[in-house]
Amino acid sequence: MKYVGRSIARVDAVDKVTGRAKFTGDLNVPGMLHGKILRSPYPHARIRGIDASKAAALPGVVAVLTSKDISDTRPIYSGRPVIALDKARYIGEPVAAVAAEDIRTAEDALALIRVDYEELPAAAGIDAAIAKDAPLVHDDAPGNICGHERVEKGDIQRGFAESEEIFEDTFTFPMVYHYALEPHSVIAQWTEEGVTVYSSAQHPFQVRGDIAKIFGLRPTQVRMVIPFLGGGFGSKSYTKFEPLVVALARKAKRPVKIVNSVAESMLTVRRHGARVRLKTGVKRDGTIVAREAEIHLDTGGYADNGPQVATRAATRVLGPYRIPHIRTDASAVYTNKSSAGSFRAIGAPQVIFASESHLDMIAERLGIDPAELRLKNFLKKGEELRPKLRGMDADLPSSLKTLVRASEWRRRSKKKGAAMGLACGATNAGATPVSVAMVRLLPDGTLTAYAGSTEMGQGVRTVLSQIIAEELNLPIEAIEVGGADTKVTPYDASTGSSRSTTLMGTAIQRAARDLKQQLLRIGAEALRVKSGQIQLLDGAMIAGEMRLTFKEAVERRFGGGGELIGHGDVGPEITGSLPVFWEIGMGSAEVCVDKETGEIALTRYVSVADVGKAIHPEGCVGQEEGASMMGIGHTLFEQMIYEDGQLVTAGLIDYRVPRFADVPAEFETVLVENEDGPGPHGARGMGEGGLVAVAPAITSALARGYGVRIRDLPLTPERVWRALKAK
Amino acid sequence: MKYVGRSIARVDAVDKVTGRAKFTGDLNVPGMLHGKILRSPYPHARIRGIDASKAAALPGVVAVLTSKDISDTRPIYSGRPVIALDKARYIGEPVAAVAAEDIRTAEDALALIRVDYEELPAAAGIDAAIAKDAPLVHDDAPGNICGHERVEKGDIQRGFAESEEIFEDTFTFPMVYHYALEPHSVIAQWTEEGVTVYSSAQHPFQVRGDIAKIFGLRPTQVRMVIPFLGGGFGSKSYTKFEPLVVALARKAKRPVKIVNSVAESMLTVRRHGARVRLKTGVKRDGTIVAREAEIHLDTGGYADNGPQVATRAATRVLGPYRIPHIRTDASAVYTNKSSAGSFRAIGAPQVIFASESHLDMIAERLGIDPAELRLKNFLKKGEELRPKLRGMDADLPSSLKTLVRASEWRRRSKKKGAAMGLACGATNAGATPVSVAMVRLLPDGTLTAYAGSTEMGQGVRTVLSQIIAEELNLPIEAIEVGGADTKVTPYDASTGSSRSTTLMGTAIQRAARDLKQQLLRIGAEALRVKSGQIQLLDGAMIAGEMRLTFKEAVERRFGGGGELIGHGDVGPEITGSLPVFWEIGMGSAEVCVDKETGEIALTRYVSVADVGKAIHPEGCVGQEEGASMMGIGHTLFEQMIYEDGQLVTAGLIDYRVPRFADVPAEFETVLVENEDGPGPHGARGMGEGGLVAVAPAITSALARGYGVRIRDLPLTPERVWRALKAK
Repeated sequence: MKYVGRSIARVDAVDKVTGRAKFTGDLNVPGMLHGKILRSPYPHARIRGIDASKAAALPGVVAVLTSKDISDTRPIYSGRPVIALDKARYIGEPVAAVAAEDIRTAEDALALIRVDYEELPAAAGIDAAIAKDAPLVHDDAPGNICGHERVEKGDIQRGFAESEEIFEDTFTFPMVYHYALEPHSVIAQWTEEGVTVYSSAQHPFQVRGDIAKIFGLRPTQVRMVIPFLGGGFGSKSYTKFEPLVVALARKAKRPVKIVNSVAESMLTVRRHGARVRLKTGVKRDGTIVAREAEIHLDTGGYADNGPQVATRAATRVLGPYRIPHIRTDASAVYTNKSSAGSFRAIGAPQVIFASESHLDMIAERLGIDPAELRLKNFLKKGEELRPKLRGMDADLPSSLKTLVRASEWRRRSKKKGAAMGLACGATNAGATPVSVAMVRLLPDGTLTAYAGSTEMGQGVRTVLSQIIAEELNLPIEAIEVGGADTKVTPYDASTGSSRSTTLMGTAIQRAARDLKQQLLRIGAEALRVKSGQIQLLDGAMIAGEMRLTFKEAVERRFGGGGELIGHGDVGPEITGSLPVFWEIGMGSAEVCVDKETGEIALTRYVSVADVGKAIHPEGCVGQEEGASMMGIGHTLFEQMIYEDGQLVTAGLIDYRVPRFADVPAEFETVLVENEDGPGPHGARGMGEGGLVAVAPAITSALARGYGVRIRDLPLTPERVWRALKAK
Repeated sequence: MKYVGRSIARVDAVDKVTGRAKFTGDLNVPGMLHGKILRSPYPHARIRGIDASKAAALPGVVAVLTSKDISDTRPIYSGRPVIALDKARYIGEPVAAVAAEDIRTAEDALALIRVDYEELPAAAGIDAAIAKDAPLVHDDAPGNICGHERVEKGDIQRGFAESEEIFEDTFTFPMVYHYALEPHSVIAQWTEEGVTVYSSAQHPFQVRGDIAKIFGLRPTQVRMVIPFLGGGFGSKSYTKFEPLVVALARKAKRPVKIVNSVAESMLTVRRHGARVRLKTGVKRDGTIVAREAEIHLDTGGYADNGPQVATRAATRVLGPYRIPHIRTDASAVYTNKSSAGSFRAIGAPQVIFASESHLDMIAERLGIDPAELRLKNFLKKGEELRPKLRGMDADLPSSLKTLVRASEWRRRSKKKGAAMGLACGATNAGATPVSVAMVRLLPDGTLTAYAGSTEMGQGVRTVLSQIIAEELNLPIEAIEVGGADTKVTPYDASTGSSRSTTLMGTAIQRAARDLKQQLLRIGAEALRVKSGQIQLLDGAMIAGEMRLTFKEAVERRFGGGGELIGHGDVGPEITGSLPVFWEIGMGSAEVCVDKETGEIALTRYVSVADVGKAIHPEGCVGQEEGASMMGIGHTLFEQMIYEDGQLVTAGLIDYRVPRFADVPAEFETVLVENEDGPGPHGARGMGEGGLVAVAPAITSALARGYGVRIRDLPLTPERVWRALKAK
């Protein structure tokens, strides 16, 4: 292949390095006001009244938004209003917002708003929230359960009865933040025809639908325009405060822009903290017989996609293993904290940290090599993990054998004192299989592609360009993949769940093929050959000595002007059942611990990703390395700490993310390409899988080398030092 | 049929009557400046220098544009620059432009610009321009000929030799103005990515191409957005001062809006004045044997589409008649007047006034009834008018017989003193057959159509909605046809030459059929029937008792979200050769003249249009009546008068257009529907044909009733009075 499988220069590289690439915060629209949000200082409080009169009277202030202004709107997720109504449910919840001629005036106005709060007892965390007589975050959610998922298979009692050994462990995972470089930014412009929203949103069509529902508009009256995103990682999936900015613009009768500070974005969305209790029954030879899991996820004040995270976690805790008897329960729990939502591989890092650590402990206790234990229990290709899910579509042993080989596991892990661990993860990914795409071949022979995927650094525009280029044998330079604009680009379910290469890739491939058929019909007629005799080469059709460029083909079709349109779509038929693919990530870690300080140095990390087929190998490696670094973050450093309901780690001073110095001295990514994915050329999604193995691999390396098994992340020096002390 | 052939409410009716419909002048973009143009006060002058320093220094002025700023641009038509370079060629030519914070400041700044002119001898009109030693308007156009077309057939000498009678007459036609209610308006916004232009342009894709060429951009870097137009009639076809506004915005580094005054628009474009000399040889029984024509058209300072007008005029002077021997010459002539361009039925009213008056004079001199003379000589269906043109595709006798019947010609024209005349016209219309369209069926079951046709009052959005509705049996309310936006809507050659119903109508019909096939595939699978067994009804597929709505079909295809895209295009294959169709217009007039004043009262006018199939009958009648009224204007009232190169009729005070009081007491339009056009359901274009018969019909009515044959339009009271006096 000429374009696919090659690490071509990113199509947005020049725009990005020259600063020409525009992000939402860079945009200004005519007559635009600047907005600021007043946030609740209490984790849980009744709002008895708001006096915004002084703020409204401040010169330069155009509108102050409070709950009185949104009585005609409908909530979206689990009672989440556009702005707090009678109650505030977390510190940082928007209770009022100001639109003013400039930011400074908006900020000054916030200070003039008087809110009469009645503080209420708060459900500070999972334990407090699920305790008997806990204060209710939402009156209609008894026990503060916002979502619950149970997975059952076989007979769990019989499973444990048939087991020869039963192990039980509990693990915790901290709340962490995505820390995309670009905080959430939104511009909304309300007109009598509808509303235009520029947003750093990953899922433009979902936000469009939500705004339409909230404000009683038709979806086509809502136009979402998505510039480049400065990273997403799930933090910009679903609808965030777009409705608030829309309501503010509606009231101000002028466009309004709100750009979050980092601290505000941290209060906007985060990863669910989790507690995972696992009970696993095995035969003495390591065969897994039964697993019971109880998972609690800290969703915060509003549901966002918490229920979905619970649903995924209840499955993802099973690992890619054959387990005859299963019962897992996952609960998303309302607490008086900021809302948790999607975060790269939703629900997976939490439960895979637990389940892979647990499996390693079992291996240790049974005296079985961790790699062997996994190989013994892996699902075969096509085998079902649990009912109602599509069977495993990847060759798991090939990934693990690749990891064992690349990491030199057999030699290095057997050395005396070797602090080396490995872990495996498989997640049901790909999300909703609905993507529609269009390509337009213009009279100058260039092609413009319309795809609703959002470019957030993952390289989707480059990959789609490659897929089109390959299908049509058209140089990359002749192809332009634009940004998402719901007025222009056809429907796409979302950009997330590693789905774009596979799903939008398939839609755009089909669109290119539709165009190709049209070109071949024109070519066959022009060159007087059968279309089967035509080869495509560099933007031309070739038959023997004859040649017709695409440009000439358009000219021939229309005589001047015109354009050829190809379209393609993909729906559930792509795989018949979900998941669209299993995303496979495995990794091995080697660590060295400073026993005086407890500080862990990650000396070597090898990551293996089964990508089916790497459309852009360097892009895949970059994604995998980025995911691994993100995993290193939540394993060693990152945690959002609340004190009295207040987030005290709201910025890089207090919230430690991995730095370049934290990159492992030896850091390798190996791609497995069995061309067995459902996407173009056998690709499957990737970019999330690299995240899940890091924490259990490092934790196991620590346990195997230093004899301390830590069940709570992150592995801070203090925690490691205490564990070493307590040994 | 359920939607086609019905006079449904216009889809833009509510927006228009409530004022919600936006025109370019209504738009404002962020940071927008207002522009004004400094125009030459001389018909012909060398520009020795421009001192814009005082204007540039005026507070509030952001940029002053002169020829120095456009050294990197390329001219488009026959040397027409973005702004005058070394010479000004007509009074009113832009020589400088100012962009300022407000209009008043821009106007004030104009007065501060000093232009050092050297006045040159001017070519004031056709005679002066083609005289020996005439001053040259363009150095590279000897004899001031900007375009010349010769049509030849048979042997003209032999033709005259074989003729029994030879007649020769000369006619003149005034320069007239379109007088669309909305003057030309443009907003341009230049960014490093390209340029966005909002314009009252009829042909967005042509303007896009011109701007790209002028400024060295790729066509996709130029985005043309076209709001509603307040009338066009050709005045907004091709590129007008969009490039000037783009250059000004480029210099100002901010968006700039320029809205013409009526006087400025009159200096921007007009219809070619013409002199037509005709020589026709006939047999005594009225059979036409030979025709020679010499046509001169006053194009003005720059070509615009003058050459094309000459090309059309050279053919259109032949009428829809069988003439064995032909030689016609049409010349577009540069003069030092404002530029002439397209105007409803380009080149036709001028030459058809001449040729039909001439034919009537022949009928009179031979003693043959004018209707009989025409019936005798009409082309048969399929018969060729001249080489290289598609044969006549309409049944001409059926139109004339309809006119004779509806006007009661046989009874009323035979009455003593009857002042009744009739005339026929057939023009090769339809223009370039290149249109591409797209329809998108959204998950809510509504359909959005993307068509590049511009809505300028002619009702194209309504007609396209009807064609889609009919194809899919989908209620009109579920269909939205948006405006032209070259970023969004596929390529369309133009909106003009009566082409949209036929050509864009076919493209959109094909797009709807493409969608229909997709729906039927889904329906057949869902209802377990063959697609042939499915009927469409009100947005649903019906098979026996079973029913699947379009909404359900999208849901079934995708499981949620998604959309179905259909596309269609039309190219030269629609008819194989040009014209795409012949546009047929015939009319009869009855007049009553006040002999004291010479004032003509048009007491009765019957117009017949062969529309093939009326998609929207009331719309067709409205177009025909509007065209007839416009014809009444140039027949009785309108003329642009120049004195010393200065237009002295620049406004409604001095330029007399038809008023409601001028509507004929009896005014009837009859549509001929033989369903033999190339468009959807047998439609052919209309809306221009109603214009061409008016002048010769009225002139002949005057001649027949009052004995004076006037060869020069308009038939002002003075001219008629003098003719009556001279009788």
